[in-house]
Amino acid sequence: MTKRNTLVGEIDEAVLAYTVGDDPALDLRLLEADCIGTAAHVTMLASLPLDPPLLRGPERDRVVGALVGILRAGRAGKVTITASDQDVHMAVERLLTARLGALGKRVHTARSRNDQVAVDLRLFAKDALHALIADVSALARRLVLFARRHADWPMVGRTHLQPGMPGSVGLWASACAEDLLEDTALLRGAYALNDRCPLGAAAGYGVPLPIDRRLTARLLGFAEPVTNVLHAVQSRGKVEAAILAALVQTMLSLSRLAEDLIIFSMPEFGYFRIPGQLCTGSSIMPQKRNPDVLELVRARCARVAAQHAAVVGVMHGLPGGYNRDLQETKAPLLEGLRTTHASVAVMARLVGALKADRRALLAGFRPEVFAADRALALAAEGMPFRDAYRHVRAHLDDLAAADPEEAIARKTHLGAPACLGLDELDGRLREVKGFASRARRRYYAAVGRLLGVKYPALTGGSES
Amino acid sequence: MTKRNTLVGEIDEAVLAYTVGDDPALDLRLLEADCIGTAAHVTMLASLPLDPPLLRGPERDRVVGALVGILRAGRAGKVTITASDQDVHMAVERLLTARLGALGKRVHTARSRNDQVAVDLRLFAKDALHALIADVSALARRLVLFARRHADWPMVGRTHLQPGMPGSVGLWASACAEDLLEDTALLRGAYALNDRCPLGAAAGYGVPLPIDRRLTARLLGFAEPVTNVLHAVQSRGKVEAAILAALVQTMLSLSRLAEDLIIFSMPEFGYFRIPGQLCTGSSIMPQKRNPDVLELVRARCARVAAQHAAVVGVMHGLPGGYNRDLQETKAPLLEGLRTTHASVAVMARLVGALKADRRALLAGFRPEVFAADRALALAAEGMPFRDAYRHVRAHLDDLAAADPEEAIARKTHLGAPACLGLDELDGRLREVKGFASRARRRYYAAVGRLLGVKYPALTGGSES
Amino acid sequence: MTKRNTLVGEIDEAVLAYTVGDDPALDLRLLEADCIGTAAHVTMLASLPLDPPLLRGPERDRVVGALVGILRAGRAGKVTITASDQDVHMAVERLLTARLGALGKRVHTARSRNDQVAVDLRLFAKDALHALIADVSALARRLVLFARRHADWPMVGRTHLQPGMPGSVGLWASACAEDLLEDTALLRGAYALNDRCPLGAAAGYGVPLPIDRRLTARLLGFAEPVTNVLHAVQSRGKVEAAILAALVQTMLSLSRLAEDLIIFSMPEFGYFRIPGQLCTGSSIMPQKRNPDVLELVRARCARVAAQHAAVVGVMHGLPGGYNRDLQETKAPLLEGLRTTHASVAVMARLVGALKADRRALLAGFRPEVFAADRALALAAEGMPFRDAYRHVRAHLDDLAAADPEEAIARKTHLGAPACLGLDELDGRLREVKGFASRARRRYYAAVGRLLGVKYPALTGGSES
Amino acid sequence: MTKRNTLVGEIDEAVLAYTVGDDPALDLRLLEADCIGTAAHVTMLASLPLDPPLLRGPERDRVVGALVGILRAGRAGKVTITASDQDVHMAVERLLTARLGALGKRVHTARSRNDQVAVDLRLFAKDALHALIADVSALARRLVLFARRHADWPMVGRTHLQPGMPGSVGLWASACAEDLLEDTALLRGAYALNDRCPLGAAAGYGVPLPIDRRLTARLLGFAEPVTNVLHAVQSRGKVEAAILAALVQTMLSLSRLAEDLIIFSMPEFGYFRIPGQLCTGSSIMPQKRNPDVLELVRARCARVAAQHAAVVGVMHGLPGGYNRDLQETKAPLLEGLRTTHASVAVMARLVGALKADRRALLAGFRPEVFAADRALALAAEGMPFRDAYRHVRAHLDDLAAADPEEAIARKTHLGAPACLGLDELDGRLREVKGFASRARRRYYAAVGRLLGVKYPALTGGSES
Repeated sequence: MTKRNTLVGEIDEAVLAYTVGDDPALDLRLLEADCIGTAAHVTMLASLPLDPPLLRGPERDRVVGALVGILRAGRAGKVTITASDQDVHMAVERLLTARLGALGKRVHTARSRNDQVAVDLRLFAKDALHALIADVSALARRLVLFARRHADWPMVGRTHLQPGMPGSVGLWASACAEDLLEDTALLRGAYALNDRCPLGAAAGYGVPLPIDRRLTARLLGFAEPVTNVLHAVQSRGKVEAAILAALVQTMLSLSRLAEDLIIFSMPEFGYFRIPGQLCTGSSIMPQKRNPDVLELVRARCARVAAQHAAVVGVMHGLPGGYNRDLQETKAPLLEGLRTTHASVAVMARLVGALKADRRALLAGFRPEVFAADRALALAAEGMPFRDAYRHVRAHLDDLAAADPEEAIARKTHLGAPACLGLDELDGRLREVKGFASRARRRYYAAVGRLLGVKYPALTGGSES
Repeated sequence: MTKRNTLVGEIDEAVLAYTVGDDPALDLRLLEADCIGTAAHVTMLASLPLDPPLLRGPERDRVVGALVGILRAGRAGKVTITASDQDVHMAVERLLTARLGALGKRVHTARSRNDQVAVDLRLFAKDALHALIADVSALARRLVLFARRHADWPMVGRTHLQPGMPGSVGLWASACAEDLLEDTALLRGAYALNDRCPLGAAAGYGVPLPIDRRLTARLLGFAEPVTNVLHAVQSRGKVEAAILAALVQTMLSLSRLAEDLIIFSMPEFGYFRIPGQLCTGSSIMPQKRNPDVLELVRARCARVAAQHAAVVGVMHGLPGGYNRDLQETKAPLLEGLRTTHASVAVMARLVGALKADRRALLAGFRPEVFAADRALALAAEGMPFRDAYRHVRAHLDDLAAADPEEAIARKTHLGAPACLGLDELDGRLREVKGFASRARRRYYAAVGRLLGVKYPALTGGSES
Repeated sequence: MTKRNTLVGEIDEAVLAYTVGDDPALDLRLLEADCIGTAAHVTMLASLPLDPPLLRGPERDRVVGALVGILRAGRAGKVTITASDQDVHMAVERLLTARLGALGKRVHTARSRNDQVAVDLRLFAKDALHALIADVSALARRLVLFARRHADWPMVGRTHLQPGMPGSVGLWASACAEDLLEDTALLRGAYALNDRCPLGAAAGYGVPLPIDRRLTARLLGFAEPVTNVLHAVQSRGKVEAAILAALVQTMLSLSRLAEDLIIFSMPEFGYFRIPGQLCTGSSIMPQKRNPDVLELVRARCARVAAQHAAVVGVMHGLPGGYNRDLQETKAPLLEGLRTTHASVAVMARLVGALKADRRALLAGFRPEVFAADRALALAAEGMPFRDAYRHVRAHLDDLAAADPEEAIARKTHLGAPACLGLDELDGRLREVKGFASRARRRYYAAVGRLLGVKYPALTGGSES
Repeated sequence: MTKRNTLVGEIDEAVLAYTVGDDPALDLRLLEADCIGTAAHVTMLASLPLDPPLLRGPERDRVVGALVGILRAGRAGKVTITASDQDVHMAVERLLTARLGALGKRVHTARSRNDQVAVDLRLFAKDALHALIADVSALARRLVLFARRHADWPMVGRTHLQPGMPGSVGLWASACAEDLLEDTALLRGAYALNDRCPLGAAAGYGVPLPIDRRLTARLLGFAEPVTNVLHAVQSRGKVEAAILAALVQTMLSLSRLAEDLIIFSMPEFGYFRIPGQLCTGSSIMPQKRNPDVLELVRARCARVAAQHAAVVGVMHGLPGGYNRDLQETKAPLLEGLRTTHASVAVMARLVGALKADRRALLAGFRPEVFAADRALALAAEGMPFRDAYRHVRAHLDDLAAADPEEAIARKTHLGAPACLGLDELDGRLREVKGFASRARRRYYAAVGRLLGVKYPALTGGSES
């Protein structure tokens, strides 16, 4: 059976369903970005010194007003994308044409859905990334706070999970914080890659009209336009892969933190305790308080890694120019961003509520944990280290239990338990937060100017 | 903020949202399986010779009747899973308790959500796999039909995409068919692995009650129970990975078929033509008729591969026993099955409508395509092959154009263009179809007996 | 700079180095398979009733004799593949031509490196797979033995790693054994897929000569030939992916076993002890005895999964016919087989030496481990299970410690601690071992007949 | 059977072989980095104001002299790592002890193999990354040159591989160049992450000695030390994943370039011609000239993606502190760097030799390629674009062939065929090259100062 499609006439219904896929649902998340990108496009069209003009100033204002109306309708849950729309772009064009008549049929001049979806995704990702970077730094700062509160709480340092050398809760928590700090650098690298505007590329080959791509880039708060129009279209998928790679790094940091907490909150250790309302239960075992959140963070790390693999797999071996395969990079990007952000947020809640148990931590120390320190002490006295090592190894049973607190107090070099550099770490994290705040403000201000209303509030403006 | 949860009391709302994830939507797809599994469980409980009985016969009948009612409500779109339910299991228990009072609170005796979800997923996968196997064999048979219709249509055989030796449309189409036939063997391997019943494992450690696990396996149409109860729970994820690996193989076959059709339907070749109503258009280029379906099949191959990678990633390094990570293997399985099935179906439609263009196929033959045949002819006359090869290589310009039809007619050995063995291939595919039909009938008959209604129609029965 | 290549004349040296890659080293592992495949090919050529014959009987014997000589030279480390050979096929052709003159130039009649490498890889994989299947079953039998020896040793059953219900060492060990048993079914599925002979496909389009593909299949001990010659070439990569998918399943089983042993051999548990000579040490901590083997098994599971992903990635979107991309599926296959086999072997050694500590196991039981059993006991007495669950939950502090041994003795249904079905499991594993033995014998007998020497010993024969 | 190991005494030989894996071969690639890292470590030890000193100045000089000797021996192929060494670290310690006696046994004071291998890998990666970045920019510059030479050569612009709109060779080539330019930004992000020194972390818990971690960082030319010592060890794997993610991006760019060249050098297009000495041949088809290099670049993109997946897979779910799993991140990193670098280099050679065929490019233009331009022209005249689109669509047969050169000359906005911005692109690429040169010089100068010889030449110095 075939179905009437606004764009291409008769189309087989099964084919339509297969090609549209989950887009009607997914694309709703892109509605705001699509309206914003369209507002910039028509503003630019209206600015061109052509005769006849492609769009007049008052026409531009009517279109932007209608777009704000669609945005508000979207927030009120009143916009749906139908299968015959295929995607958000045709839905918005349909809504505009319904409101504005022939004027609505002009907005697609000099662009294609190829550059349109590219700009939508970059706007969406830009908005998501500054929020994510802010929340990653907030989680890291909670870890620094935890480290500061437990800076001199001894904790057995392990390698291969076996007891190794004296360590501390402060060392453990601030290691996780520094890990996340480094992740923000990669997220910022992805942010910068994403911060270039593809609009005006049309189908990847430009248009025979004197459009102003620098203007649209500026209107949308991008750092600059992508230069080459073919690259503007082809970079779709590549940017997604870069963003997802940075998300994977963040999820790996969370996954290690989760794994440590799962293990060290087992009753056999009891180092950490997760409050009951952050745990879930069992349908058959009445006593259970399970760290489901942590297990899901761990598992979702694998899911996000697979989203990255999906995008790379889709891109691998694709020929140049737009190919429909690129549609399949959209869901992984949106899911990856959503999952990572939710995981960071839930871990922040959990770290904020985490309790350490000093008694249990101290109980974990056995004499052999001090073996390496003993060998190093012998080396400090002049014995070649390898001989000292062999000597201690041969006399393990003679190792006396030492004081864990003294042991960690003696490690005073940079980054060791007694010299964690928490203030500096905090300072760096504040810088990251500042970056995220500025990025958010700059973007929202640009959108606000473009739409003539406060953004993201959507208040004010002549139409409201 | 915390929220009252039926199972575990107060729970932090953000934690609940994070742990529940997409389950309320995903689990709706498991509603039928959950009701069926529960029907088997209560039937078994009622069969136990205990005093007092865990469940009496008439009680069992009331529960099964209520389950049929839930099934019908589900088909009518009247069942929803709430976040406080967390999953389909608690939703069904809630609905049963609402209908049956205290009796509803008995059904969970001697099982856990761990074995319950395991049996649900296996029932779901069993139902999906026999349908998929049937459809893969149907697609392969369309390819055999296409091969038969074009058995002696020459087509340049390529290696490295460069023209190589004379080939034929028949050879090309039946190669794809044999590929899919082999895929069905792997799908059947996954089917067999899945065809063992985990029910009765409870949380993976069994129960101190004399339950009859062979009976539930039989009631549900499984070949046998999983033996070890810990393995019954731990095999979750492993079975998913095995099924997805077989799906990946199928998608790889489709991806090659798609790639060939994309390339050879470019106007520069024109070997194949896809009817217009199976193509889609462009928003800017009025002339476009794009093979989007084929591109999406290609891209979704990468997506299904990533679903497999996700499950393997989740499983890697997990300790024994149930871990919540396993929840994250559910979406990849369901998505992988759905995507693969839809891709097979849409390709069947497309292959059914595909046209070949004999003139364009013949136009592709240039003299050098016959070079290897010429060298082999010299070898047949007695020249050592490597010398014949060098001779032809040195005199490529002398190669006369030969008749492509004669060239392929001369390749008469097994599997070559003039001896494709299509009847035998068709026979094997019929056998596969027979397997799928028997599997479907057996399963539906078992479910029908268990529920006392026709399945999947849900008609008949004392309650209807 | 260019370099003289035997096949294609001048070739740029950098290009040659890039295209050859690691093949000179990798292909050495295929030397035996290449000689065996070539022996079957020339035997078939000599059997054809052509005039003039492509090869006469005595010529065939001389070629086979020379091949046996090359095999022996290879075992003595005297065969090397040069970059200008590019691969094992041209190296063997070069060696044959050096020994046999013009006769050597005849062996490549009616075949291509495309079908040649395909048959080499299938022979290699066949030989590797029956050995692997045998060793997986041997490891599983050691686990059954361990389970039998510790059938009634209580061990806390965990979910989410938290103590859950009473379990046993026997339950734990035999769960792993059943997991591996299921893996062997998938390995056998891959074995069957691989057990079809691609020889005679040449470049994927057959040859205009009446070759006998059934004969070569039989001579090489294959179940049957691949039918379609294009499929014979195109199935390369697909077969590799299927084999690797089965290897991944096996590695996942090992990875869980490894994870459990890593955790439960920490001193805080002490359930299991790995003998010192199976551990390794630290360069700075004299006391360390680390379970490196287990960690590497866990990590190598991820590596094998990546080998699978690599092959699927290479195959995705490839057009039909031979493409050089397929070369990149060789290393993942060879590495995957080697790694999995080595991991199975080392785990067998480790399981054989593993000690359990009954006292430590018992020390792990705390009263709440018996909560579910208590609720089930109340249910058996007539209280609706959900009420019993809530009752126990409200009175967790009243739970008395129970006897773990009695607790597991009460779980008597199929697959529970008191009914593990070890004899049946052992029986199935013997059947698997029998399959592997028969496969090995059948293959070696076929090769021995073909070469006229004992195989794999290479003793006897007229040439020796 | 057990074997004497220098470090841990008796160890089972099979276990040793399994744990050592391919390290004896792989670690040879780390020999220089290990010697350099050790030189920095002993220089720092000698600088500490301790009494007794851990190492005296002249002792430091003797150690460094011996390390230079080992470096030279390594270059001469005279260093081997034995299985009982296990790795490069113990091999260097063994060689030092052989040359220096007891002094050699002092060098391992205050460090562990954990921080040692971490610093080795970062030094290796630093050296590899600046070279790679330089070569990526060189490849991109060749593409710019190609674009400049063919700036106004028309080439059909495609979407979905179907002819779409007029494009140009210049557009195509400079799109690839801009893609690679963006990749260098990600590679630089990875470089920066890697540019922090982990030395002094020992086993991840620091040492009770006043070591100077800032000094070693400076001596080795790192931007700064990693702060937290636990993070210094734990970031292993994370850094590898970040580097590999950037390599994947680069390989994706190459893979698209390769795919385009494979397709458009088919005789049916003939747009591009790859010189014969950059192609390879067939063993059966005398006429073949195959683009193997391009196919291998495409396939190796999937391999590098799998190396990234392997590292992420290994890291996922690992607990904190050193785990032996990390060893399995080494081969993927080294292989990924090697493969990407070789692929970039071979593509540069190929692009340098690539020929375009103007006649074939023009022959690809058919009237419908101008359909979108026609609709846009109507829009420029005042018709709403969507109406213009429908009008052209309804009259496709009336489309006259237009002049491709004029068509692309009319696209004058930023990034379109007539305004490619090649000079600016070239300028950015020069900046990238400058970065790489400075990074290389800075690193080599630091190493030269440390060793007292010219680096990498190893000439000069008191010992030479």
